Amino acid sequence: MSNEKQEAVSLDDPVELVVPGFQAAAVKAGIRGKDRLDMGLIFSEKPAAVAGVFTTSQVKAAPVLLDMEHLKKGSARAILVNSGVANACSGAQGMALARGTAALVAEALKIEATEVQVCSTGVIGEQLDPAWFERGIPALVAELRQDGFADVARAMMTTDTVPKVEKVNFEINGHEVTILGLAKGSGMIMPNMATMLSFIMTDAAIASDVLQDMLKKATDQSFNVVTVDGDTSTNDTVLLLANGVAAHETIVSMAAPEAHLFQEALERLTRNLALKIVADGEGATKLITVRVQGAASRADAEQIARTIANSPLFKTACYGEDANWGRIFAAAGRAGIAFDQGAVDIFFDQVQMVAAGLGLFANEEAATEVLRQEDFVVTVDLHAGKESCEIYTCDLSHDYVSINGDYRS
Amino acid sequence: MSNEKQEAVSLDDPVELVVPGFQAAAVKAGIRGKDRLDMGLIFSEKPAAVAGVFTTSQVKAAPVLLDMEHLKKGSARAILVNSGVANACSGAQGMALARGTAALVAEALKIEATEVQVCSTGVIGEQLDPAWFERGIPALVAELRQDGFADVARAMMTTDTVPKVEKVNFEINGHEVTILGLAKGSGMIMPNMATMLSFIMTDAAIASDVLQDMLKKATDQSFNVVTVDGDTSTNDTVLLLANGVAAHETIVSMAAPEAHLFQEALERLTRNLALKIVADGEGATKLITVRVQGAASRADAEQIARTIANSPLFKTACYGEDANWGRIFAAAGRAGIAFDQGAVDIFFDQVQMVAAGLGLFANEEAATEVLRQEDFVVTVDLHAGKESCEIYTCDLSHDYVSINGDYRS
Repeated sequence: MSNEKQEAVSLDDPVELVVPGFQAAAVKAGIRGKDRLDMGLIFSEKPAAVAGVFTTSQVKAAPVLLDMEHLKKGSARAILVNSGVANACSGAQGMALARGTAALVAEALKIEATEVQVCSTGVIGEQLDPAWFERGIPALVAELRQDGFADVARAMMTTDTVPKVEKVNFEINGHEVTILGLAKGSGMIMPNMATMLSFIMTDAAIASDVLQDMLKKATDQSFNVVTVDGDTSTNDTVLLLANGVAAHETIVSMAAPEAHLFQEALERLTRNLALKIVADGEGATKLITVRVQGAASRADAEQIARTIANSPLFKTACYGEDANWGRIFAAAGRAGIAFDQGAVDIFFDQVQMVAAGLGLFANEEAATEVLRQEDFVVTVDLHAGKESCEIYTCDLSHDYVSINGDYRS
Repeated sequence: MSNEKQEAVSLDDPVELVVPGFQAAAVKAGIRGKDRLDMGLIFSEKPAAVAGVFTTSQVKAAPVLLDMEHLKKGSARAILVNSGVANACSGAQGMALARGTAALVAEALKIEATEVQVCSTGVIGEQLDPAWFERGIPALVAELRQDGFADVARAMMTTDTVPKVEKVNFEINGHEVTILGLAKGSGMIMPNMATMLSFIMTDAAIASDVLQDMLKKATDQSFNVVTVDGDTSTNDTVLLLANGVAAHETIVSMAAPEAHLFQEALERLTRNLALKIVADGEGATKLITVRVQGAASRADAEQIARTIANSPLFKTACYGEDANWGRIFAAAGRAGIAFDQGAVDIFFDQVQMVAAGLGLFANEEAATEVLRQEDFVVTVDLHAGKESCEIYTCDLSHDYVSINGDYRS
């Protein structure tokens, strides 16, 4: 797209992290002690079309259940987020708290409670103290400002080592459009904090049913193709708000050329956010792309790629910089998808280690060089069709065990 | 069973490790250097009924493919095993080698090649040198003896820290019957050596079709309910030979009372072997039983128990002795089985940490005490039915990462 530019986003220059018609703020509400930003608020000055994608877990946290209910309205004005306590497995008390915080936000902003989305991340099973919100929400509303998004990105961090933001600017029919995304966490996370959250704000004008289709499609190509340890959270949530301030004609169909422009920008933004999550995976030292190609169907390719990407034997070999194609082959074999083992090729970047099911040991040194990089692609070609899938993951290191095993001891 | 005794098995007293009508031997064939037993042979003096259970992986090693072919005969006389090279992903050359070694054994023992089962464990993708077998097989045949099984148990070890043997004696209609089992390895294994092998010899007289049903049933209750890291090998094999030397009337139906006697003894033996494999899992410091009960079906219970048992977040928490029930709850939630999160109870041994979906934080200290043990049970009760399943696993430690990540570096 020639009319598009991707800006370098710097957290040290918060003025850049703005989207017309949106405000944000974060405060130290006391959930995580005195000195940590732990509560954030995002506010749209106009009613915004809203789309949401939530955890597929059977065990859904209270805020997820509330957000799914509120999402039916199709428009929203605010997102409230806290870290420290997940408000998951918290029963009727937790549900009442989630509902109560949405009401507090609505009252302070003079909007409807159903226009408020609430998100939590942190320890499962503990209860949030209403007092934190009774103090925090008025402070957040008082501090709302255009350049408050960097603070929100920090307030939603748990074991993240860096805040994660992405921004894309482009034009729709001569109107400048911005998409700003915040994200936190990953599958490979601290005890009880296994949550991935992302909030995406745009001033584009898009009907809410189209927006939902766009977000679902973008999520399937980004957050849903990264895996750190295969664990899925009770709280995973992606929200997309579009407030129409850019004032182009509203996009009402996925088939419109403008929809295609927006979709492409949205997918690049969500993909970059997802890759930042993997790269910041607990203990991760390498970003690994597992590509399965030549499959009979995309579902086959994805099943095999996921099985490889979640194999502890494969992930520890990557950590050890060991070009251990046998583990890749073995993981593919147990994925439950039929294929001819005598047709399989395996590559580390461009270095072929398996040809028609047999190892090319002469290439082992070159393959080991590939694994010494911080970022590489493992390709498995089944030669059984034309479909493919890429899954993004990281290695399994000593630090992963330390972070997750030694946390409370 | 009143007529049954289970003997304490000691490898230092190899005379005990005998089964009437079977002989065994192991040699240093040079596959793993000069000083390691790496090739073994088991011989039945009479034709024995044979049953086999093999890896479900799409990627099957050459010996697995050959054994499945030979198994159709229904009787066998010999098992040849080597460690060091798995003969997997080895193409036509590997298949020719497997077939050639069976022929060499047959020639030396004056039996049919189809009466020989061959098993390999070790590095995937490398080729075995025929010279190792041309020297090794005559030496094995020359050394066959009744008390050679302890040596075979050692010769089949890869990353195992101890050889694994079990023996059961009982009576069928006044005839003393012995079952002797050898096993090696586990899912959590050294690079390219992810193989579980078990050879079970008995002097009972059992028709081969009944024997196959018995072995399948016993495997489902033992080797198939242990998991170390969820990885499945290209070479996994369990073989059961019954030579009838005990001279009781041949068991020809699973419905016979004698079949029940044998089945019970077989299941205790295979279960003990399976638990020895988990306890010797790479880097394992704890043996964990994950029990899911109150499920609508056994399949539901098993799916949830396996998802918990393979969760890296759960396994690292066990290593860290952290009574982190949120991770158990979260893993259950993503298993793909519908349940009411508000009905769930979770226990560490007898200590309840979750009641009707809510945490009992007052019990955390007592639960932590349970996790300090080397062996404990995690129970998840769904209160949705009467079915249950137990899966056995171990924790995920720093040593697992070291063993699997640092191997070739």
